[in-house]
Amino acid sequence: MSTSASRRVLVLNGPNLNLLGQREPAVYGTTTLADISAMLAAAGPLGLRTELRQTNHEGQMIDWLHEARNDTHAVILNPGGWTHTSVALHDAVKAIGTPVIEVHISNPHARESFRHTSFVSPVARGVIVGFGADGYLLALHAASRF
Amino acid sequence: MSTSASRRVLVLNGPNLNLLGQREPAVYGTTTLADISAMLAAAGPLGLRTELRQTNHEGQMIDWLHEARNDTHAVILNPGGWTHTSVALHDAVKAIGTPVIEVHISNPHARESFRHTSFVSPVARGVIVGFGADGYLLALHAASRF
Amino acid sequence: MSTSASRRVLVLNGPNLNLLGQREPAVYGTTTLADISAMLAAAGPLGLRTELRQTNHEGQMIDWLHEARNDTHAVILNPGGWTHTSVALHDAVKAIGTPVIEVHISNPHARESFRHTSFVSPVARGVIVGFGADGYLLALHAASRF
Amino acid sequence: MSTSASRRVLVLNGPNLNLLGQREPAVYGTTTLADISAMLAAAGPLGLRTELRQTNHEGQMIDWLHEARNDTHAVILNPGGWTHTSVALHDAVKAIGTPVIEVHISNPHARESFRHTSFVSPVARGVIVGFGADGYLLALHAASRF
Amino acid sequence: MSTSASRRVLVLNGPNLNLLGQREPAVYGTTTLADISAMLAAAGPLGLRTELRQTNHEGQMIDWLHEARNDTHAVILNPGGWTHTSVALHDAVKAIGTPVIEVHISNPHARESFRHTSFVSPVARGVIVGFGADGYLLALHAASRF
Amino acid sequence: MSTSASRRVLVLNGPNLNLLGQREPAVYGTTTLADISAMLAAAGPLGLRTELRQTNHEGQMIDWLHEARNDTHAVILNPGGWTHTSVALHDAVKAIGTPVIEVHISNPHARESFRHTSFVSPVARGVIVGFGADGYLLALHAASRF
Amino acid sequence: MSTSASRRVLVLNGPNLNLLGQREPAVYGTTTLADISAMLAAAGPLGLRTELRQTNHEGQMIDWLHEARNDTHAVILNPGGWTHTSVALHDAVKAIGTPVIEVHISNPHARESFRHTSFVSPVARGVIVGFGADGYLLALHAASRF
Amino acid sequence: MSTSASRRVLVLNGPNLNLLGQREPAVYGTTTLADISAMLAAAGPLGLRTELRQTNHEGQMIDWLHEARNDTHAVILNPGGWTHTSVALHDAVKAIGTPVIEVHISNPHARESFRHTSFVSPVARGVIVGFGADGYLLALHAASRF
Amino acid sequence: MSTSASRRVLVLNGPNLNLLGQREPAVYGTTTLADISAMLAAAGPLGLRTELRQTNHEGQMIDWLHEARNDTHAVILNPGGWTHTSVALHDAVKAIGTPVIEVHISNPHARESFRHTSFVSPVARGVIVGFGADGYLLALHAASRF
Amino acid sequence: MSTSASRRVLVLNGPNLNLLGQREPAVYGTTTLADISAMLAAAGPLGLRTELRQTNHEGQMIDWLHEARNDTHAVILNPGGWTHTSVALHDAVKAIGTPVIEVHISNPHARESFRHTSFVSPVARGVIVGFGADGYLLALHAASRF
Amino acid sequence: MSTSASRRVLVLNGPNLNLLGQREPAVYGTTTLADISAMLAAAGPLGLRTELRQTNHEGQMIDWLHEARNDTHAVILNPGGWTHTSVALHDAVKAIGTPVIEVHISNPHARESFRHTSFVSPVARGVIVGFGADGYLLALHAASRF
Amino acid sequence: MSTSASRRVLVLNGPNLNLLGQREPAVYGTTTLADISAMLAAAGPLGLRTELRQTNHEGQMIDWLHEARNDTHAVILNPGGWTHTSVALHDAVKAIGTPVIEVHISNPHARESFRHTSFVSPVARGVIVGFGADGYLLALHAASRF
Repeated sequence: MSTSASRRVLVLNGPNLNLLGQREPAVYGTTTLADISAMLAAAGPLGLRTELRQTNHEGQMIDWLHEARNDTHAVILNPGGWTHTSVALHDAVKAIGTPVIEVHISNPHARESFRHTSFVSPVARGVIVGFGADGYLLALHAASRF
Repeated sequence: MSTSASRRVLVLNGPNLNLLGQREPAVYGTTTLADISAMLAAAGPLGLRTELRQTNHEGQMIDWLHEARNDTHAVILNPGGWTHTSVALHDAVKAIGTPVIEVHISNPHARESFRHTSFVSPVARGVIVGFGADGYLLALHAASRF
Repeated sequence: MSTSASRRVLVLNGPNLNLLGQREPAVYGTTTLADISAMLAAAGPLGLRTELRQTNHEGQMIDWLHEARNDTHAVILNPGGWTHTSVALHDAVKAIGTPVIEVHISNPHARESFRHTSFVSPVARGVIVGFGADGYLLALHAASRF
Repeated sequence: MSTSASRRVLVLNGPNLNLLGQREPAVYGTTTLADISAMLAAAGPLGLRTELRQTNHEGQMIDWLHEARNDTHAVILNPGGWTHTSVALHDAVKAIGTPVIEVHISNPHARESFRHTSFVSPVARGVIVGFGADGYLLALHAASRF
Repeated sequence: MSTSASRRVLVLNGPNLNLLGQREPAVYGTTTLADISAMLAAAGPLGLRTELRQTNHEGQMIDWLHEARNDTHAVILNPGGWTHTSVALHDAVKAIGTPVIEVHISNPHARESFRHTSFVSPVARGVIVGFGADGYLLALHAASRF
Repeated sequence: MSTSASRRVLVLNGPNLNLLGQREPAVYGTTTLADISAMLAAAGPLGLRTELRQTNHEGQMIDWLHEARNDTHAVILNPGGWTHTSVALHDAVKAIGTPVIEVHISNPHARESFRHTSFVSPVARGVIVGFGADGYLLALHAASRF
Repeated sequence: MSTSASRRVLVLNGPNLNLLGQREPAVYGTTTLADISAMLAAAGPLGLRTELRQTNHEGQMIDWLHEARNDTHAVILNPGGWTHTSVALHDAVKAIGTPVIEVHISNPHARESFRHTSFVSPVARGVIVGFGADGYLLALHAASRF
Repeated sequence: MSTSASRRVLVLNGPNLNLLGQREPAVYGTTTLADISAMLAAAGPLGLRTELRQTNHEGQMIDWLHEARNDTHAVILNPGGWTHTSVALHDAVKAIGTPVIEVHISNPHARESFRHTSFVSPVARGVIVGFGADGYLLALHAASRF
Repeated sequence: MSTSASRRVLVLNGPNLNLLGQREPAVYGTTTLADISAMLAAAGPLGLRTELRQTNHEGQMIDWLHEARNDTHAVILNPGGWTHTSVALHDAVKAIGTPVIEVHISNPHARESFRHTSFVSPVARGVIVGFGADGYLLALHAASRF
Repeated sequence: MSTSASRRVLVLNGPNLNLLGQREPAVYGTTTLADISAMLAAAGPLGLRTELRQTNHEGQMIDWLHEARNDTHAVILNPGGWTHTSVALHDAVKAIGTPVIEVHISNPHARESFRHTSFVSPVARGVIVGFGADGYLLALHAASRF
Repeated sequence: MSTSASRRVLVLNGPNLNLLGQREPAVYGTTTLADISAMLAAAGPLGLRTELRQTNHEGQMIDWLHEARNDTHAVILNPGGWTHTSVALHDAVKAIGTPVIEVHISNPHARESFRHTSFVSPVARGVIVGFGADGYLLALHAASRF
Repeated sequence: MSTSASRRVLVLNGPNLNLLGQREPAVYGTTTLADISAMLAAAGPLGLRTELRQTNHEGQMIDWLHEARNDTHAVILNPGGWTHTSVALHDAVKAIGTPVIEVHISNPHARESFRHTSFVSPVARGVIVGFGADGYLLALHAASRF
């Protein structure tokens, strides 16, 4: 287990997640990314410091994943729509040594068939789906035990 | 129907369309994006104000689609090669309330099999393909009747 | 461009479209074929004379397409359920020199997967789907520019 | 339940069923359509009046299904070879409000794989296969309980 | 036709059918297995004695099918979820000489694609689906004519 | 071998073949159906009397195949586009005892993949493709040896 | 949220999980089911009472899921090898109102392709995979927030 | 090689094999399980003690496979219809250290396509099919050489 | 048309055809290759000289096809089992200018599915199947008209 | 059972098996073909005389199989890589009356997916895989009981 | 061949290749992009000036490819993970006249199946894979001969 | 690196490549194998001695690959049409320790879909396609660096 000083957890969010709380609330709920960030910050006793980011640019996401190679305890990654299409993300996750936890707010297996495959899952340490915003918190719990 | 003041139509073009008029003229014709922009502007009597943009960055396109959530009557979207591969665009189109019209200059169904599926079509209001640059004008006509 | 005298446009409709306006209004709307015929006639300034027909017999449709080889500027074709199953229609469209525009009232790409392929699209000049009855009018606009 | 006066049941038979009793008796038995018609007429106590027809023309079948929108309690439909190929019949069955019971004399699931899918079944009220000519009688029983 | 003394019909029901009447009433209706048992018993004039059972254990079902090799006129079998996955049931049905009628309360062809194939259908004498609890009664009618 | 009096050979042609000689001459050549009829008539020494027909109606084709059950030595069948889609024709060919020879003017195996499967071939006595109009003559030779 | 008295959580484990800790430790780790039971019991502050069971009989598992319809706050379900093959379990999970959390000790997406599909996931409230025995604890956390 | 005292070989038979000798003799022959048991017992000189069991319950089979982890030289397994459908058996075979020999009486590769894949074969030490009851004896020979 | 002196026709037969007349007579008939050779020689009035060969070596067949580049009017090729598997033969047929007629004694489309595709057909001038030994004679007729 | 004088068993080995004992010992072991030949010769009490051959030429293998039509009790065939690709071998095995036993040293079902299908298996009398060189001996045992 | 002044070769590298030398050295080796750049610069005698770039942004890559339309002799392109997913890159490569050589450091055909297809290969002039960093040098040699 | 004395490179060419320079020059160019042999000989400074061979017999090719196990630095292999169909070649390449470089003159990925898969590529050290005859020279360069 890494020392306290280095226990940063990057919480990286992919395309369209900036609309969280506004977009299709029946599917994604009304919680915003800011709410999630606050919720994670409040989970302090776990001894992990979270840093939440979002981007609609795949290249930016890859850069962030590369950044996670240093001084990062774990990554919580919600790859959004890239989940099902991006070999580049697969490669980025595989390339870094830091464990990555894949999180989805909705349950992709209960949706369209093109959401049933994930290029990230085979290289993720673990996957958590379907719990809404709580999924991030569960991922943080999981990371606290690495 | 929205009021005149808000009747902006975003005309968003994806990868490689900046080469329109130069690239494979046998397939795509010799009209440029600037020509299309002018043609659309000349169609003023429809009461719609068009704003034509192009990007090779998927993230930029997603941002523009998000921007279309406000003060925009409709989007005319030519997603280029992303049509067949981008779940992220699918999600972006679905996330915004503004109607999106998918346009292709060539007829993808008469080309390679990987162009026969579109991730945008299932969430588009309508689709117009195969009419060359005229497709944009037809889309504008369509939007004028929303 | 053909001379005014010959600028007839055949508007051919396939199986079950005689029920238009009555059948599944949530999918197909409440406009009838007669309404569409009137709407197209009213679009006179385009300099095209439309002639709308409907049949539930594939053989009849093939005969009409053959008829379109003479004195016909363009065909607007809504092949209904044959879209997805008829190689014979594919061959008929390909066999005649007259340009054919495929129109669908609903957006097949947003429906069952067996509606995602079309035997007509690869040989059509262009395809317009999802705009309801307006699709016929857009097709007429398109034809007016051939 | 509709009133007695309107309790007509159309018994519609598709391609090649005019040969019933002569064609491949090992598969289809020796009963003819006339025998079936008589058998159904003799089942009078059910309070349903049957009207049996056969056609090799898909267009004719669609017309008959449309006719069933009025004054018809139910349709018993043996679509023959169209079962596996006709989206047009699928649409016709879906378009009318009258319940349709799909019947097959043989058991398609015990035959060639191209007989294992049916475009009619998803829109039929129920399906009865494999009971020979008795299938029509069972369908009539079923219809008598709608 | 077997003698009256032996005209037992086993009515065998697979997994989750013990919840019939409570589980997803929109799909399966409100009739219980006990109701069905009573309904079948009341159909006495057909000269068949029915015996209705239910199990969530595939092994139990196979044993019952084997039991049906003796003193049993026919089996009415609703294999529930095993329909789509069990080669063992396919083999059991094929192994016994007694005719088996497959019944489903809902219409599987109108549901998820994994319900569109049945390992039982190819070896069943006949199949009846989509008529709710009435399907059992129709099956009994069918069996009465073997 | 049947007696001379009954040695009629029906030469049945499916959809779009009425355009033969005009339609896509690069694929189908310039010979017309009338030319073929004359060529076959001139092949008299084979002791077979040919009767050439064409229809764009599947129902008509099925009726003609049924007619071939009597007083017909063999059928030469060019099913056109129905080749690849019609189970009804498959059933009709299978239902009649008369041998059927499938002929195609072009070589379907050298064309689009949807032309690579034939519902007629599995039930035809033999298949001849790719020899242009000569294919009919070869089929007549073949039939003369039945 | 249900009252404290009813907050039982059933922790149901499918085939071969009785060998946990002994079977393929490289894949499944060395923790036993008894260890997991103890770990969950120690997580008491969540206000949930867990009851861990294991069976190699699908029928038993279905019975337990039915039992969870009453007096049960949630089910944590590790369906083992049935995950990928059992429609019967799918139906059982769907039939009960109680939320079900699917847990896998290993990450199926990083293993053989036949482990990439789950019949349980589409009807589960959420899914947690790849965290070893910790997955059960995370599921309990999740359930505590229902 | 294990000592003589422990050289027990479990001969485990899956669903419907209790009917061996009665069921479809054209496929499976007339030898019964009892005959096979006797045949194996008579093969004593190989120094292996066989114990033949049969069950129609998958859970029972898994329990027996687990039992084979101790005091068992090898398992001869005829999984019957579970061969093609059971990941749970795959996992059980993989979980135990004892070598498992898969045996089939008929040759599945010469039968329906759903019998061409086996979930057991990839984890079996070896596979013997098509030799009728002799297959068990061959398996015993094979096991005697482990 | 080539001059009389060069009108050699190579009749090339692939694997197992040396057994013709002995192997599976129900499928392939009782005519031997020698019979076919004699039959073709007797068809002299066509002005073609045939030379019949057979080999079980693919390399030999390719050499013979290459030889056909000179002094050969046409090739009649029965590729036997290589039909469905050999890209090398496809390439050889395509590489030579001489027209190749593919012949099969049986009708592959009425047999196993792996016989439904041919690597030779797309590059053959024409294909003749299902007429038994007569197929060679028909091919010779066809070649006489090149 | 054939007389002792004719009880020759051909042991035919396909491509690359000449390298046995040298090639990929982790997969194929260190036994050579010569070792196997000796092992089989030593199994004399079975009353069978074995003759082991190997070739890298498919044509040679077909010739040997044809030779086995006479004076041969059985064939033990290890088709090597041709197993998965050769319809010609399938046809040769089917063409001869002599029973053929397919043997593989490794277990193809535990290797790449292209090794999971065999063109030989459907026409073999039986198949034995995964027992290393012992497989040949088991096959000889099997043959001794024909 | 272009003049010396214009013989620039762009060496474009896609996502994650900035980690080359650090990421999965067992797969990709320990050479860095800087090493490759130096190696290519040292290959001066070929008369080509190389310019090596890397980006994780697809849009940037498309812009660079467009830039290569002018003053560029050839492009050496390692598209990384985009290889298998990007129609946009396919279109960009096709749109420019400059020849593009696709290079991969590892051999994708020896890896996961999703790496076996490339959208770039069909439009590349040539493809070089599996030679590690040497692949770039080989590509430069190839380009020197255009 | 092997000593100079052993640095033989076998350049092995498969079916139809003897026609190189004559066959389909638009696809394969006008260079002959003899030209390539001379070109490779002239590349002497690389310190490799090349030996070019061609065969249309798969068995011969396998023998040559086996020969390459001794005194051979590398193999340059153009498997022609066998590329896409031969598991036997796959096994031969895998069986020998000598590195094999797969070369194709044309770019298979730009041709028919059956040329998009290679059984050789997964076991080749590297693959070079699309550079015409230069591909051999590039392969020699590659081999010089092993």
